Amino acid sequence: MPETQLGRDELSALDAHWRAANYLAAGQIYLLANPLLTEPLRPEHVKPRLLGHWGTSPGLNLIHTHINRVINARDLDAICVWGPGHGAPAVLANAWLDGSYTATYPDVTRDAAGMGRLFKQFSFPGGVPSHASPETPGSIHEGGELGYSLAHAYGAACDNPGLLAACVIGDGEAETGPLAGSWHANKFLDPVHDGAVLPILHLNGYKIANPTVLARLPESELAELLRGYGHDPLMVAGEEPEAVHRELAAALDTALDRIAAFQRAAREEGATRRPRWPAIVLRTPKGWTGPAEVDGLPVEGTWRAHQIPLAAARENPEHLRQLESWLRSYRPRELFDERGGPVDLVRAACPTGERRLGANPRANGGLLLRELPVPPLESCAVPVTTPGSGQHEPTAVLGRLLARLMEATGERRDFRLVGPDETASNRLQAVYEATGKAWEAETLPVDEHLARDGRVMEILSEHLCQGWLEGYLLTGRHGLFSSYEAFVHIVDSMANQHIKWLHSSRELPWRRPVASLNYLLTSHVWRQDHNGFSHQDPGFVDHVLNKSPEVVRVYLPPDTNTLLACADHVLRSRDYVNVVVAGKQACFDWLSLPDARAHCARGAGIWEWAGSEADNREPDVVLACAGDVPTQEVLAASDLLRRHLPELAVRVVNVVDIARLLPSDDHPHGLSEHDYDALFTTDRPVIFAYHGYPWLIHRLTYKRANHADLHVRGYHEEGGTTTPFDMVVRNDMDRYRLVMDVIDRVPGLAVRAAHIRQHMADVRYRHGLWITEHGVDLPEVADWTWRARA
Amino acid sequence: MPETQLGRDELSALDAHWRAANYLAAGQIYLLANPLLTEPLRPEHVKPRLLGHWGTSPGLNLIHTHINRVINARDLDAICVWGPGHGAPAVLANAWLDGSYTATYPDVTRDAAGMGRLFKQFSFPGGVPSHASPETPGSIHEGGELGYSLAHAYGAACDNPGLLAACVIGDGEAETGPLAGSWHANKFLDPVHDGAVLPILHLNGYKIANPTVLARLPESELAELLRGYGHDPLMVAGEEPEAVHRELAAALDTALDRIAAFQRAAREEGATRRPRWPAIVLRTPKGWTGPAEVDGLPVEGTWRAHQIPLAAARENPEHLRQLESWLRSYRPRELFDERGGPVDLVRAACPTGERRLGANPRANGGLLLRELPVPPLESCAVPVTTPGSGQHEPTAVLGRLLARLMEATGERRDFRLVGPDETASNRLQAVYEATGKAWEAETLPVDEHLARDGRVMEILSEHLCQGWLEGYLLTGRHGLFSSYEAFVHIVDSMANQHIKWLHSSRELPWRRPVASLNYLLTSHVWRQDHNGFSHQDPGFVDHVLNKSPEVVRVYLPPDTNTLLACADHVLRSRDYVNVVVAGKQACFDWLSLPDARAHCARGAGIWEWAGSEADNREPDVVLACAGDVPTQEVLAASDLLRRHLPELAVRVVNVVDIARLLPSDDHPHGLSEHDYDALFTTDRPVIFAYHGYPWLIHRLTYKRANHADLHVRGYHEEGGTTTPFDMVVRNDMDRYRLVMDVIDRVPGLAVRAAHIRQHMADVRYRHGLWITEHGVDLPEVADWTWRARA
Repeated sequence: MPETQLGRDELSALDAHWRAANYLAAGQIYLLANPLLTEPLRPEHVKPRLLGHWGTSPGLNLIHTHINRVINARDLDAICVWGPGHGAPAVLANAWLDGSYTATYPDVTRDAAGMGRLFKQFSFPGGVPSHASPETPGSIHEGGELGYSLAHAYGAACDNPGLLAACVIGDGEAETGPLAGSWHANKFLDPVHDGAVLPILHLNGYKIANPTVLARLPESELAELLRGYGHDPLMVAGEEPEAVHRELAAALDTALDRIAAFQRAAREEGATRRPRWPAIVLRTPKGWTGPAEVDGLPVEGTWRAHQIPLAAARENPEHLRQLESWLRSYRPRELFDERGGPVDLVRAACPTGERRLGANPRANGGLLLRELPVPPLESCAVPVTTPGSGQHEPTAVLGRLLARLMEATGERRDFRLVGPDETASNRLQAVYEATGKAWEAETLPVDEHLARDGRVMEILSEHLCQGWLEGYLLTGRHGLFSSYEAFVHIVDSMANQHIKWLHSSRELPWRRPVASLNYLLTSHVWRQDHNGFSHQDPGFVDHVLNKSPEVVRVYLPPDTNTLLACADHVLRSRDYVNVVVAGKQACFDWLSLPDARAHCARGAGIWEWAGSEADNREPDVVLACAGDVPTQEVLAASDLLRRHLPELAVRVVNVVDIARLLPSDDHPHGLSEHDYDALFTTDRPVIFAYHGYPWLIHRLTYKRANHADLHVRGYHEEGGTTTPFDMVVRNDMDRYRLVMDVIDRVPGLAVRAAHIRQHMADVRYRHGLWITEHGVDLPEVADWTWRARA
Repeated sequence: MPETQLGRDELSALDAHWRAANYLAAGQIYLLANPLLTEPLRPEHVKPRLLGHWGTSPGLNLIHTHINRVINARDLDAICVWGPGHGAPAVLANAWLDGSYTATYPDVTRDAAGMGRLFKQFSFPGGVPSHASPETPGSIHEGGELGYSLAHAYGAACDNPGLLAACVIGDGEAETGPLAGSWHANKFLDPVHDGAVLPILHLNGYKIANPTVLARLPESELAELLRGYGHDPLMVAGEEPEAVHRELAAALDTALDRIAAFQRAAREEGATRRPRWPAIVLRTPKGWTGPAEVDGLPVEGTWRAHQIPLAAARENPEHLRQLESWLRSYRPRELFDERGGPVDLVRAACPTGERRLGANPRANGGLLLRELPVPPLESCAVPVTTPGSGQHEPTAVLGRLLARLMEATGERRDFRLVGPDETASNRLQAVYEATGKAWEAETLPVDEHLARDGRVMEILSEHLCQGWLEGYLLTGRHGLFSSYEAFVHIVDSMANQHIKWLHSSRELPWRRPVASLNYLLTSHVWRQDHNGFSHQDPGFVDHVLNKSPEVVRVYLPPDTNTLLACADHVLRSRDYVNVVVAGKQACFDWLSLPDARAHCARGAGIWEWAGSEADNREPDVVLACAGDVPTQEVLAASDLLRRHLPELAVRVVNVVDIARLLPSDDHPHGLSEHDYDALFTTDRPVIFAYHGYPWLIHRLTYKRANHADLHVRGYHEEGGTTTPFDMVVRNDMDRYRLVMDVIDRVPGLAVRAAHIRQHMADVRYRHGLWITEHGVDLPEVADWTWRARA
């Protein structure tokens, strides 16, 4: 390691800043009043409920202090992802010290009164959360759930060549699978077009109640692990502040010098060898500088420092005494002036303006967001003169749109497509005409579409895909995540957290809207011919619809042009989580582009051409559908009814935007009662074929007028490696079953149409025999096409 | 590596077995008839739909062949977890060769006719899935979703000291987070009481459409990674079969010798140093021995070999010709006799009886399962003479029961508790009186409760916890997973797969029932005082209730004794996924143990003592509740109503078993219409306070008589770091709101009780002011206790 010689003054300033931050972190956790300890600490100065996490805070304060130093020394454009976000007291303390907190929340002034507010609001009703969160200036990372920090940092660094994304990884978080898998993200970081990520693995040795795995590895084994991850580790360890300041400063300088050298080599000399990027391992005691011992048990340097080292500070005089002595150990009178603001020595250590970690616009990505130049859909739309006369693979056509979008953003580089090794499987491969797949590892002549500067990101980790995209979006760019429908459940919990992030961000005027997180769910439940039961789960829609309606949107386009129209909408939207479910298999084209646009804008509508309604007459039955396969089955059922029961007035309703079914009070897209009844009637049976779990439709519509006569068919966990039509038969959503449902539900038909019902049942039976023998669908199903009404 | 000298005969036998398995794997993918190629291959011999995965199969066949060798040579008790389970053709081929397939499925005989059936059934309607699955003899691992193989292998090895759990990890799967995190499971494996895990990392270089990360690391970097994971890697690589046979045989012998030495040292010499366990890295071409080139493009050794190398074998004569020449390249006439069975040379390479991988009883754990000696609940139950007179922390009391259970299984070692560093946080720490936390890494004097032979397993990875437990249960043992409620979503997708596994297993009489997978979800949504919004998500219940009702059970015990009664039930049950949601904070004791048992047996019932019903009169309103906090609020509301509206007849219904709400047609636990109506009436308003998302209750009850007058309160994504009562207020589930709901819904009250309604609204307003000032709940809420009716 090259020597970084910290001058005595510099060291004093760093240490003063660190002590100030530690004081403020502890103060937030404990103090309701007397923030500057201008008088002796009394019980009523202590909060009645002590909530927060001290243990990680001094380490985060140390790192923040030292990042400040290098930002100043190098005029760095840096953000930091705080993996141990439960150390929010530290992040908030630093933002208050450098003034970025007051700039964001003017009432929390940088004086005694503001310090009092800073302290009181923390983990207090009506105040700020105890984890780094959208409310935290400079944060793009919710610190509650663990595992995603490194993925977020890499997402932020992509296409930000001037940025340093530092990332603090706690040794607890490091045990999670998503974090363990994220280390390999360095094989996808282009030193030319992307910025740098500097992982800082903080080993404070303990989680909530256990030692951590990485802290208990022999140092040589840990070093091998990090080298195996492709990093060059710089080890810093200690318990003596001055020595740790010196070592950490030297390690940071070394790391940044190496990063600069790698970037220079790649950018100026055309080096193509994958760099062995630096990583820092910082080993300091948990709860460092806090109480060494409480009630006779060791606390500092153990798991007991995780939350509140002195749990009874308000009730127990000895705890109160220890708290006061702990707080005074930072010597606040040296750190804050008589008005309560940080003294010059402390301020001098802070960057200014947008260089402050709490004020870097990259961490408030909406500030930087540009409109996405989505190409005209006409360039890709499929011609539809008569409904059902042609077929296309919807996602393949979408791939062409994405290719044009990749071209249009070729210079700007603010759009990325992520997916777990499924972009081609999901038929989006046209996109490779415009960009490659990011890949910095070894290549072989047989490889296709790999490119150092590719903007398609594929790794077999849904977690990393999601984390990359979140980091990319929250720093002001755009993107799309394509996934097999079933396996998007892998990121259920990440989606939760992102939806919560957007939900909270919407309440914060200073957080500017960011691009929506867009999911394309394909290779869906009905067409798992290759993979069968394990690959069948349409429940992600149910999962997200449990979350904030202001944030969540779900679309089920029934054909190619409606998929394009949905894609156009979601790609332009802001602050949503959009879920688009669409097939990749050849699918009938039902709507022309103008019709598709109009239909998507309405979100749900009557397809007059598909039913047999007479003018000015209520239908006898409504056949409703949402999703591509259900739509096909409903149209085939309508066709059968037209042939077998020509006098029946059938209405076909297609739903693209599933939230239209909700009451307008419950979701911004909900239909008014009047509009809902106009589609579904108030008194006719509705047979609804739905793409996913049927009870979701009931959960959305139970307040509707006609709910008692709504009958839903959908997937109910029956499946295997079988034919496409067998899947719908097994789940009772096939055309014949739908006709039987109509006969069962329309008053008067049960007897009159009994023979037709029997005929339908016979075909289903014959289907079973046929596929077991032939392994393919009945010809009358396989060859069925829609015939327009005469 | 010590020399393993394969004799010429042994080598021939191994190669013949491998060729036979490869032939059978390809045959399953392609052939509908002519299985032995007794006649020239014609289009009609080829399946009309070609579905399956060839690419990984030859590698799996190679590994299986060589595991057979060491089983025979060492009389090993071994199972194998096939991570690339999409290579089911290989696993099935091997089971057919050693006779275990025919033993399981007698109609698939080990002759030409049986081979024909083996081929036809694969990925065919009514046949077997294309992934390793419950239908696959010898498998404990569904091969559809990737990421969990190594965790399963470790779970299987725990408390099975004689077992070798080999685990093939594909280089695709290795990119997933859960797999990347699972490598550290070796820090939890006790060489004395546990068996061994032998990871075999199979690098065939490609995923569906991309190179894999690990295959493109320089070998030295990959070796560092594995050493960093705590392994000693043995590298085997090649494309020339004889050389690879020799190298792999030597590597396996080396690995097994080292494992035996480590176990001997630990068991006989008391060695306590964590072993650096061996791991094998096997680098062979994807689709090895398949077509080198198809349509002018390289296939063998590339991603193009992933699924069907010759996609048009039925239609394209050149593909057909290539297929025939590929199949004949294995020289089937040397491998199978005239009857179609494997020749002696091939059979000789196979183990026999229960040593066969397809017949090891550990992979059909129900065969080995013993009744769990759950201690009498009386030993832990809390005394309840009057409802609400005492309080306990439910999970803390459960911890005492688990401690006794740990004692009772101290010798048998067939019960484990897993959790992500939360056992103590979830207040189950009494269990440490009976056993420790498994830990083989370094220990320090300050550590508590760590033990090499501990049966509590804690790592900050929900994925690893779930995978461990699945592997442990499927090999015939018992366990419980305790998790923060919100973060159990991290394993949504794993839970899906396990539920699907049990769903399919129930159809297979030869798979004996295994112990249920039991979740204890605590630190729940209503009591995230410390952590706030990011830690609030009660949706796992919704998630699992989408899955097979035969498998899924959900319990919401309202107090300590009901939690004990539920725990007793779920721990004794079989083949379910049980979800128990219970609080860890002090909670009123409502029911004595006998009452709790009776209430849990009913699943839902009227709490007469809590309402104000007159005899022989229908109530005016039903207050229903499910969950501990909702129950408290409903009882407090009932108390308020008794004081303010003494003439109102209030019924209180508590629901423990949430599926009781479903119609009996939809779930085995569903109440009959009659029984449901007897609880909820057919015409009185029902105000239902539910623990989670309120619409779940509607989704369960929409078919019920009184559904139109059911009004549900629950969590609707409002929360923060705030007081317990503020949480229920923010989500409109507080006692005052419930009273307002009663006034709004009971006919005639709106005017008559307007002043009471206003009073309730006033208290809620006062609450808001109070907590913002004081940070704690209103005294009248904090001090509320239930007073029994006079």
